Amino acid sequence: MANPNDPALHSWIDIPPHSDFPLQNLPFGVFYTEERGTRVGVAIGEYVLDLYAVSQFGFFRGLDLPTQPKVFRRRSLNAFIKLGRPAWRAVRQRVSQLLRHDNGELRDNEEAMRTCLLRQREVQLLRPVKPQNYTDFYSSIEHATNVGTMFRDPNNALLPNWRWIPIGYHGRTSSIVASGTDIRRPNGQRKAPDAQVPTFGPSQQLDFELEVAMVVGQATQLGQTVPLADAEDHIFGLLLFNDWSARDLQSWEYVPLGPFLGKNFGSSVSPWVVTMDALEPFRVAGPQQEPEPLAYLQQPGAHNFDIQLEVSLAPAGGEETVISRTNYKDMYWSMAQQLTHHASNGCPLEIGDLYASGTISGAAPDSYGSMLELTWRGTKPLTLADGSQRKFIQDGDTVVMRGFCQRGPLRIGFGEVRGTVLPAE
Amino acid sequence: MANPNDPALHSWIDIPPHSDFPLQNLPFGVFYTEERGTRVGVAIGEYVLDLYAVSQFGFFRGLDLPTQPKVFRRRSLNAFIKLGRPAWRAVRQRVSQLLRHDNGELRDNEEAMRTCLLRQREVQLLRPVKPQNYTDFYSSIEHATNVGTMFRDPNNALLPNWRWIPIGYHGRTSSIVASGTDIRRPNGQRKAPDAQVPTFGPSQQLDFELEVAMVVGQATQLGQTVPLADAEDHIFGLLLFNDWSARDLQSWEYVPLGPFLGKNFGSSVSPWVVTMDALEPFRVAGPQQEPEPLAYLQQPGAHNFDIQLEVSLAPAGGEETVISRTNYKDMYWSMAQQLTHHASNGCPLEIGDLYASGTISGAAPDSYGSMLELTWRGTKPLTLADGSQRKFIQDGDTVVMRGFCQRGPLRIGFGEVRGTVLPAE
Repeated sequence: MANPNDPALHSWIDIPPHSDFPLQNLPFGVFYTEERGTRVGVAIGEYVLDLYAVSQFGFFRGLDLPTQPKVFRRRSLNAFIKLGRPAWRAVRQRVSQLLRHDNGELRDNEEAMRTCLLRQREVQLLRPVKPQNYTDFYSSIEHATNVGTMFRDPNNALLPNWRWIPIGYHGRTSSIVASGTDIRRPNGQRKAPDAQVPTFGPSQQLDFELEVAMVVGQATQLGQTVPLADAEDHIFGLLLFNDWSARDLQSWEYVPLGPFLGKNFGSSVSPWVVTMDALEPFRVAGPQQEPEPLAYLQQPGAHNFDIQLEVSLAPAGGEETVISRTNYKDMYWSMAQQLTHHASNGCPLEIGDLYASGTISGAAPDSYGSMLELTWRGTKPLTLADGSQRKFIQDGDTVVMRGFCQRGPLRIGFGEVRGTVLPAE
Repeated sequence: MANPNDPALHSWIDIPPHSDFPLQNLPFGVFYTEERGTRVGVAIGEYVLDLYAVSQFGFFRGLDLPTQPKVFRRRSLNAFIKLGRPAWRAVRQRVSQLLRHDNGELRDNEEAMRTCLLRQREVQLLRPVKPQNYTDFYSSIEHATNVGTMFRDPNNALLPNWRWIPIGYHGRTSSIVASGTDIRRPNGQRKAPDAQVPTFGPSQQLDFELEVAMVVGQATQLGQTVPLADAEDHIFGLLLFNDWSARDLQSWEYVPLGPFLGKNFGSSVSPWVVTMDALEPFRVAGPQQEPEPLAYLQQPGAHNFDIQLEVSLAPAGGEETVISRTNYKDMYWSMAQQLTHHASNGCPLEIGDLYASGTISGAAPDSYGSMLELTWRGTKPLTLADGSQRKFIQDGDTVVMRGFCQRGPLRIGFGEVRGTVLPAE
């Protein structure tokens, strides 16, 4: 059978140039229509392939799939993910085959084709996984340095543990929402450095954080650890993650136990999970790590991924301005190191867990992954295409994050994650 | 119908004096037997009442219960809790009636009685809820002061935000286990203050934290807040919580984002959830709060609960020594304030969420709720009944926590939460 990543493959479906979803991608997601309810789907060009319908038409027959069709009509990918990597691979391989230009099984069966293929704009794309646990790492050295400079001490911005530990903290799953969900500006406590007492009210420093999150695809038991060489086996795929943040709440509350209400009012995820298989051609070496990590975190080989990322901001009714462009490949700690560290004390991984990268900032000021850094805590406002300025996010603003891998004409994209900010109640 | 809290009520079941589970308690839990599978039960004396069996014999007939018997054969209380407070109350009321000395409905039906009542020691008591989210607060002023003194600066032990905010952080649900589950000593990174570089290996400062956790019984939607006056309506009940901690891992990793692997290798919960209704007679005023909290956290009335707590430690094969006695009533921030603060930014509460109090330490050194404090970071070892000494927990040690409310002869108890430490792998 052909390698689904082969750049020469093309589909009988008309896929626009520069689409995020060519035949070589085939990311998984969950969609809803009134007629069908919830279904697992695969993105292809401007369409979504309904995997439940595909299975009902018998197109998965003969696959050595340890699966039942019902996993394709759940509200999340979790049940499908639980089937394991051989099943994910077999399904992606079979979908690739069905959609190839020289395969007529689906294309020439008009009833099946009309049932199995829907336009993405005619369905509602949902949160793709039900996260059991959510951890947010802090693995961009530029971001950690920038925040340390602004929140603590410019002379000791990077704390002594940072180059030894992929620092992370637990977030909250109950507020992780689908792309497109409105985000209400939170109320909370904040205290200006020169104020005597704190006040309670709408956050005045609302921010985004540009992140990529891995979806855990293989669980572990209490007490089980994961050697670095096996770490990527536990990852189902990646999605885009906007970790909305209220900087004024965060800076007042975060000592000594870390971020809490300044973070947990909302996080938005993109609808499509791009598989590790589809990302394989974009594997690159990460930055040199100095000092050398402890033995359990040492990894020969290439464990970072070359994913171009951008953030746009659009005022209410206005056009988008790209305010940041950066790349995931420069993260200091790799996903494999994050995951191995996470499991190093025997804490169980669960299917559907989301482990986010932390804000992805590059070295250049226009590659920072948050307003906090882009405007240097409001001291250097951004100017948008309509001439208006921003220190932080205003009510009515829409933040859109996009990401894609590119090599020659081959583009493997993530689509987008977006959210509009509503005024505080 | 009689008030189930009436101290004059007594049961036809023989309940030992000083039992944690008199007729006035009736806490809910989940148990397992090979024959029955998982069942929801109520503790009464040395017995457990199988609520699925009770419902199958028709004893819930006529109750205005929005329930189906299947909620009583789940692996957790979550489905039962979801039915809402009127259902919890109706079931507790009916169980109280069935077990009263002057009620023969169950007592005189030999088949039903033998089916519905099992000895607790003949069943396996499970983790009572499936926690969707877990938050750990930090609400004992003595604990926060002690930790601040040891980890940071004795002269500024309590940070400036502590008296304004019920400080908390998100923990991990995947490692929350039933009482009796062995806890494996975690490996991890730690660095002595005078060491040049960190090392990786078994924690050398393994600790417990004595806590009480609330179980969320009523959910909220994204963006919804909870006024203080309604906060207790969202609580189903309380249980005992041991937040196992590795102090050497924690002190190296916790800046700036808070505790992570030093905490998430395991937390143990007691099997019985004591309802807020059963605790009502033990409501007391909390300590005076200075300065006065911000308006959203101001609460007239009594919102603390008088729960006596103790911790015992037993070496492998040895007898228990009580190493701490304290009380939940002295917590600076009440559960209502914790919950209202948690929801103040619109972060959704979910049924089954566990919100733990943080370590419960009193003012006296023998009322501290952790080894860290009891031995003052190992500088004042404890002596056990067998003459052996402890700076922290040793392999093979069993930690047992117990709690109960007492007024005159009426005792409402929590039973116990226990765990034995296994050597690191």
